[in-house]
Amino acid sequence: MSELKNDRFLRALMKQPVDTTPIWIMRQAGRYLPEYREVRAKAGGFMDLCENADLACEVTMQPLERYDLDAAILFSDILTIPDAMGLGLYFAEGEGPKFERPLKTLADVQKIAIPDPEDELRYVMNAVRTIRKELNGKVPLIGFSGSPWTLATYMVEGGTTKDFGKVKGMMFSNPQAMHLLLDKLAQSVTSYLNAQIAAGAQAVMVFDTWGGVLSDEKYEEFSLRYMQQIVSGLTREADGRKVPVTLFTKGGGRWLEKMAATGCDALGLDWTQDISQARQRVGDAVALQGNMDPSVLYAEPEVIKSEAKKVLDGFGEGPGHIFNLGHGIHQHIDPDKVNVLVDSVHEYGKTS
Amino acid sequence: MSELKNDRFLRALMKQPVDTTPIWIMRQAGRYLPEYREVRAKAGGFMDLCENADLACEVTMQPLERYDLDAAILFSDILTIPDAMGLGLYFAEGEGPKFERPLKTLADVQKIAIPDPEDELRYVMNAVRTIRKELNGKVPLIGFSGSPWTLATYMVEGGTTKDFGKVKGMMFSNPQAMHLLLDKLAQSVTSYLNAQIAAGAQAVMVFDTWGGVLSDEKYEEFSLRYMQQIVSGLTREADGRKVPVTLFTKGGGRWLEKMAATGCDALGLDWTQDISQARQRVGDAVALQGNMDPSVLYAEPEVIKSEAKKVLDGFGEGPGHIFNLGHGIHQHIDPDKVNVLVDSVHEYGKTS
Repeated sequence: MSELKNDRFLRALMKQPVDTTPIWIMRQAGRYLPEYREVRAKAGGFMDLCENADLACEVTMQPLERYDLDAAILFSDILTIPDAMGLGLYFAEGEGPKFERPLKTLADVQKIAIPDPEDELRYVMNAVRTIRKELNGKVPLIGFSGSPWTLATYMVEGGTTKDFGKVKGMMFSNPQAMHLLLDKLAQSVTSYLNAQIAAGAQAVMVFDTWGGVLSDEKYEEFSLRYMQQIVSGLTREADGRKVPVTLFTKGGGRWLEKMAATGCDALGLDWTQDISQARQRVGDAVALQGNMDPSVLYAEPEVIKSEAKKVLDGFGEGPGHIFNLGHGIHQHIDPDKVNVLVDSVHEYGKTS
Repeated sequence: MSELKNDRFLRALMKQPVDTTPIWIMRQAGRYLPEYREVRAKAGGFMDLCENADLACEVTMQPLERYDLDAAILFSDILTIPDAMGLGLYFAEGEGPKFERPLKTLADVQKIAIPDPEDELRYVMNAVRTIRKELNGKVPLIGFSGSPWTLATYMVEGGTTKDFGKVKGMMFSNPQAMHLLLDKLAQSVTSYLNAQIAAGAQAVMVFDTWGGVLSDEKYEEFSLRYMQQIVSGLTREADGRKVPVTLFTKGGGRWLEKMAATGCDALGLDWTQDISQARQRVGDAVALQGNMDPSVLYAEPEVIKSEAKKVLDGFGEGPGHIFNLGHGIHQHIDPDKVNVLVDSVHEYGKTS
């Protein structure tokens, strides 16, 4: 493997000094980029794009050509694992992801098997290998997965949901089935992320998109516990370098101390949390990633600069901050705005 | 006006001793009830139902006939004010509320006028008067409004939204227009709620459904500040009795102390907040309303009872608790489950 030319991102995750604050952007390879939309149209379905290592690599590299970003993230979907478990993932136009065979009963859960990452999910590992080679040490590559609870919501609901009635129905009425499902998912995510690390991912992130819809008690029992299981089971070193793990629960500001106590290296923050308070709460335990409101990018350059500065000032001096949005970039953002953001973070980040 | 036979709800809002914990349920008059669906079908459109005082009264009374609830809530919509402002509210089948003429510019905002509650919104006041008469002192009647920020989101987005891009775009790029809009809305909500109180509402509640999508700083500037303005402008006494005001920001657990400092009497809590911690944080400043996860009602009676008990135990001893769900009841809940909840709260609430 070629030497890493820009290791700001990995150093910041380990709370080591950096020359300026690193930045990457959730969904940086995505629909706001015209060149992405072109490849996406060429590929056919969204999963066709994920399953083709060359195309997945092409779209992963696109934002790095436009912007001075400090990390690449594997282009893939969080629902690859449930799909590999045989639930039949498909994307209905304008409706988000759906499953042909959602889980309803304990028997359904008992039937599902833990996928072999180098078999059913080999296309993901091939993408990781292709991207890592193409990056050629430019910046580190982030691998990722959905959290067990987040994957379970889609698997039980059969798609996106507004009220989480089915998955919470199973949680309240049939906790045995829910725990069996979450344990299978934690095992699957662990082996999936370890395979990504073996294939070349230099940092990994667990996206707990829906943990925030739980109460304190249920979050600990049904989401955090299984992320803890994953953190404990991950390979934490590759190529003689630490592989940092970041946990991100959207709407999870209440639980930062508990999340930090899992032994992860960093926490992702959504924009609703005050990063200065978050840093006070977690102390030296973890690095922090985030957390500008993605909607700031609808505003003019001056507002983008001042809002980015607020986040940098909020984190304050010293290492351990990776700049990001508090959620994925919206599809209707003008791509030129991202240049304003990236450059102002690098410029202002030198002094903070 | 006839004497109030059950004042548990009003007493609890004032933190006065009660014989058992009062309970009402957000959206208690709604689609989960077959008798509601029947009236709704008969009425035509949803707004036809709101605009007909007799039908609005009929559906308001329905849950009180089935359940031993301690309060009635006016049947209406939070979007009556923007509709009265001339934005053209309509309901597209399966898509939620929409506006024909959403606000885009400062000029759009400058054009809108503050509605006269006894003119453009007279149908709401008529419903309040009809319901109050029909209640005949059985339980108190709650009036309500959306918060300025929440109303503004619909008025600028033109309907429901996933990313709040337009309304936040205006907030970040054109704060002058946004503040003008929010000030007009705060004035409108104040006169609207005061008119509801004059017409017979015995308590009022402000629903800030979308305050939780803001950062700390923006919440204070764009949502809380205008709820404060409303609280300061409300008539707080009617028929020689205090008219308590409750503020509810969904996802607003971070701001309980600040919300309590507005001078309101009670805070609504969504289910993601620990009610025991919430009580510690607000102390004696306000009563608390909530906060069982609405999805618990998908579970069997035993689970409903034990989860309700957890909320009651979480609040602990002493007055100042009004039991409710942490959000509106879901439409697919079995109506018989609500009896289980109401009766177990009243039974267990005696000892707590």
